[in-house]
Amino acid sequence: MGKVVRFGVSIEADLLKKFDQLIESAGYKSRSEAFRTLIRERLVQKEWKDPEKETIGILGLVYSHDIRELTETLNNIQHQYIDTIVSSTHIHLDYHNCLEVIILRGKSRNIKAIADKLLSTRSVKDGKLLQTTTGSELD
Amino acid sequence: MGKVVRFGVSIEADLLKKFDQLIESAGYKSRSEAFRTLIRERLVQKEWKDPEKETIGILGLVYSHDIRELTETLNNIQHQYIDTIVSSTHIHLDYHNCLEVIILRGKSRNIKAIADKLLSTRSVKDGKLLQTTTGSELD
Amino acid sequence: MGKVVRFGVSIEADLLKKFDQLIESAGYKSRSEAFRTLIRERLVQKEWKDPEKETIGILGLVYSHDIRELTETLNNIQHQYIDTIVSSTHIHLDYHNCLEVIILRGKSRNIKAIADKLLSTRSVKDGKLLQTTTGSELD
Amino acid sequence: MGKVVRFGVSIEADLLKKFDQLIESAGYKSRSEAFRTLIRERLVQKEWKDPEKETIGILGLVYSHDIRELTETLNNIQHQYIDTIVSSTHIHLDYHNCLEVIILRGKSRNIKAIADKLLSTRSVKDGKLLQTTTGSELD
Repeated sequence: MGKVVRFGVSIEADLLKKFDQLIESAGYKSRSEAFRTLIRERLVQKEWKDPEKETIGILGLVYSHDIRELTETLNNIQHQYIDTIVSSTHIHLDYHNCLEVIILRGKSRNIKAIADKLLSTRSVKDGKLLQTTTGSELD
Repeated sequence: MGKVVRFGVSIEADLLKKFDQLIESAGYKSRSEAFRTLIRERLVQKEWKDPEKETIGILGLVYSHDIRELTETLNNIQHQYIDTIVSSTHIHLDYHNCLEVIILRGKSRNIKAIADKLLSTRSVKDGKLLQTTTGSELD
Repeated sequence: MGKVVRFGVSIEADLLKKFDQLIESAGYKSRSEAFRTLIRERLVQKEWKDPEKETIGILGLVYSHDIRELTETLNNIQHQYIDTIVSSTHIHLDYHNCLEVIILRGKSRNIKAIADKLLSTRSVKDGKLLQTTTGSELD
Repeated sequence: MGKVVRFGVSIEADLLKKFDQLIESAGYKSRSEAFRTLIRERLVQKEWKDPEKETIGILGLVYSHDIRELTETLNNIQHQYIDTIVSSTHIHLDYHNCLEVIILRGKSRNIKAIADKLLSTRSVKDGKLLQTTTGSELD
């Protein structure tokens, strides 16, 4: 965690009020804690702008296994990227629907390319990529 | 999947051009496929606006297990919501950093409340909630 | 954990020696700790003898996704038992091989029946059921 | 899968009868399918006898997160072996009990050593190592 420094911030009263409401509804213990989170969020966004940076993505896919060969197609695509895909968790949502949560680790451009390939597969109902971080450059 | 209907769309040439570029970079096979995705995305957003709707969230957390009691605090919080938390996958990213991917199923307001509680825990480096769907109302 | 009681045990010197070697190679801190483990193992075995008892199984499957429709068949079987299957983690082992780790919760006879169905699927390379417990009756 | 050969087997009538009962209760479609399984099981056992062989283990642990620092201790041990531990799935069984399913990939002696270290941790209620395979040498 390292040494903690303290400094003052000047901010419009209205904006601070909105920030405090935000903090309260999200459950942060203090302005400092919430402010640290804002900074870290920006740093993670910055990491994702460098296409060569090693990072972590989480891809969520919802689809119906009733669609012929869809399960197989999605599995086959994933097997082409075994260096980037760490693991994949499958939840059988109901008799028809599947949730697949794929954890990817690698260069951000590779993660994005694999995500695009899976998300654009015909008949995938919903799919999104959550962009997070290896945490190695965040304190 | 049901019956497929076909209809015409009027759209500014410039906007269509941008849409086509978007489609190409994302790898969609056709405008229809990409358009279906846009509609489904909106439907999932709408599901999340109803606080009582049953839906699926995926929460990604990155933190250091060096922080005393953080692992334990996060686990204890989760155990209070065992009806909503389906599973949690932990990847040991490096000697210090952990990735935790938590799958939640329940009313959207409950998922949001649990996510807020975990995300606002002191020393969590990065955390985001991906809002997806049970798929039961999407074709 | 409850109150700790202490009692004496009579045992052949030779058997005790072997027990001590076992303890040392397995890394237990004390005979008491190792002895507690032996008792708990028996209790879990007993739980699995009652077909109506709620318990936990972990099924590991290794197969090649090159076999046509095998991924699909295994997924379809699992979808018939969504009340018992909690989650399924898929690791892409190499270009051909898949590991699937399925967590099951339910009556031991149901878990066994689902496991048999998946394990006897043609072309599954290796498959085993690990029988564990909900822990609710173990201190 | 390769070429299929056919050959005859001589076997005591009584033993064959028991084998057929076994096959039936386990749901195998044919004697050949069940026989292939027996051979593969032996090959996996043989893989695990070579301490330097790369293989796959699945470790199931049940414990109570009420025990002070147990969650943390188990996480800390795992972080020392990030090259061998692929992922870890956590199911919150009830308000007290946790199931942790750890997937390990590496030399069989390393997998066994890590498993022993986790299994011998004080207060782990139940723990077992399932020994499977990378599948790369099995057809």
